[in-house]
Amino acid sequence: MPVQDSLIQRDGVEPLGQLVADELERRWAGGADALDAICYYSLVPTGKLFRPILLLDSAQAVGGDPVAVLPAAAGAECGHVASLIHDDIIDQDDLRRGRPSVQSKYGINDAIVAGDALIFDLFASLAECRRTGVPDSRVARALGAVAHAGLDLCRGQSLEAELTASRRFDAATYIQVAILKTAAFFRGACESGAILGGGSSEQVAALRLYGETIGTAFQIHDDLLAYLSKSEVTGKPDVSDVQNGRVTLPVILAHEAGTPDERRQLTDALFRSSDAEQALTVVTRIVRNTGAITAATHMARTYAETARNAVLTLPPSPSRERLTFFADAVINRDY
Amino acid sequence: MPVQDSLIQRDGVEPLGQLVADELERRWAGGADALDAICYYSLVPTGKLFRPILLLDSAQAVGGDPVAVLPAAAGAECGHVASLIHDDIIDQDDLRRGRPSVQSKYGINDAIVAGDALIFDLFASLAECRRTGVPDSRVARALGAVAHAGLDLCRGQSLEAELTASRRFDAATYIQVAILKTAAFFRGACESGAILGGGSSEQVAALRLYGETIGTAFQIHDDLLAYLSKSEVTGKPDVSDVQNGRVTLPVILAHEAGTPDERRQLTDALFRSSDAEQALTVVTRIVRNTGAITAATHMARTYAETARNAVLTLPPSPSRERLTFFADAVINRDY
Repeated sequence: MPVQDSLIQRDGVEPLGQLVADELERRWAGGADALDAICYYSLVPTGKLFRPILLLDSAQAVGGDPVAVLPAAAGAECGHVASLIHDDIIDQDDLRRGRPSVQSKYGINDAIVAGDALIFDLFASLAECRRTGVPDSRVARALGAVAHAGLDLCRGQSLEAELTASRRFDAATYIQVAILKTAAFFRGACESGAILGGGSSEQVAALRLYGETIGTAFQIHDDLLAYLSKSEVTGKPDVSDVQNGRVTLPVILAHEAGTPDERRQLTDALFRSSDAEQALTVVTRIVRNTGAITAATHMARTYAETARNAVLTLPPSPSRERLTFFADAVINRDY
Repeated sequence: MPVQDSLIQRDGVEPLGQLVADELERRWAGGADALDAICYYSLVPTGKLFRPILLLDSAQAVGGDPVAVLPAAAGAECGHVASLIHDDIIDQDDLRRGRPSVQSKYGINDAIVAGDALIFDLFASLAECRRTGVPDSRVARALGAVAHAGLDLCRGQSLEAELTASRRFDAATYIQVAILKTAAFFRGACESGAILGGGSSEQVAALRLYGETIGTAFQIHDDLLAYLSKSEVTGKPDVSDVQNGRVTLPVILAHEAGTPDERRQLTDALFRSSDAEQALTVVTRIVRNTGAITAATHMARTYAETARNAVLTLPPSPSRERLTFFADAVINRDY
């Protein structure tokens, strides 16, 4: 079951997503200039809206009003999409969500400016919560959480580039990249949602931990998918990681557990092969044989359980129930 | 007299610049990772630090403590440098402040990420003012001013690209670009400084107007320099605007005032010439003959006078004196 379906099928999630989609529409549709049009193209039709939904549920889980924090939730999506737009320039990806990426459709220059604009809008959206009734003290405190999440994202991008270039099989650095590049924005959404919703220090810390650990689990599971379900959904093997020499957790754990011969085969397949499909076949076989899938799955589950336990310290509510559900859902997607 | 000299030679300006330079050093020197090193390279040695100095003086002019708002002042420089880094990618400029630009030294990918990091740091710096004693209500209010300045900057970049591509001689759009692309960050620095310093609504509005108008005067004067002082300082004519087909205010006003023949020559020189120096000679002659320099100088002076008058509504202080001095200095640079 795809994650967006599992999310939407959960009671109460679809209305939250619709709130965010409407807010994005209100902010960006019908804008007068070229920049509005590019930003709108990048945002709508929306993706899973996972980060804004986490922000709304984090706010509600601590007793906050989702309508008051709605601008910040829309902003969380803008920040996320900004990172996708700039990533697609860096990775020279021409497709995003099944459509031409911004850099492919509008060119690199407009893509740089649109990404920058969406980062600034992330913060303008946060400021807008002053007008929807969130006290200034919460807005000021959330500002730090969001800005540091953004800085961590950039550090993660930089560290990932360094890791890929180094060709090291380094689990600790892989986890560090996942925490910075992926989990930081989940953490920023949950932490800022809890702050804006008026949570206590303990509640904010719990939701911050929830965000960081669910985000890490999300990334580990994402990297596992290439070795779990090839061909089943897309009809073709998922060669992109192998092709780009990305040393993901399953490969790192296979390298740790493998024989000298398997290690050599992994290195050859990742860094010296010109046939991506054949390389994926080799890597997949070794990843499976060495128990790396089981080991990586176990790590994802450990992070997801930490997330679940963190959120169970909050009082029971429909939002808390959804948050615990998400902790399971992110590691049980089968593509 | 170069603007940095005229700034530093003014009583009290050099200590402010040194405060900011020290704060940037503290934030970015000795950072552990590759991203810190790139950001540090882009920030130090510093430029004129005009925006942070304006922020500090705006805070002081309304009775604020410059040390409390110092993180925000350093952040204003980070935001400005972020825009330079991304601009240099867009314009494929290999030189910045007499050294290789970030994109030239580190490549486009690292330059995108470093610019993003510095935008996030602009906001992290603002949040840091909570720890230096600025009340949350001011931080939250300043957030809106800074975020909207950033959005305007992006709109200005987008509009300038559109104006250049259209080859229109359009003074209204030129001014709009100057207000958005250049003046917005001056405005953001002055407005946020006034807010963080605890200014009244009237004082904040006065410094906001000051920032927007001094920034507009600054840009108009910048575009005039190509026709005022060729060869005198750099030893070579300033052909870059003509080469890039940038339709700046002197050219637009010359086009408005010129004969049909002069208009045709301007269009040919800007858009059809392959010899940039010759084209500059033609454009300079027509700009001078049509009185466009006088007219553009008059417009710059009008904006600078509005800035000066705005700041004169504040109580007398050394900061107010420096701010009025800057309003003159930005249009009296002779290169």
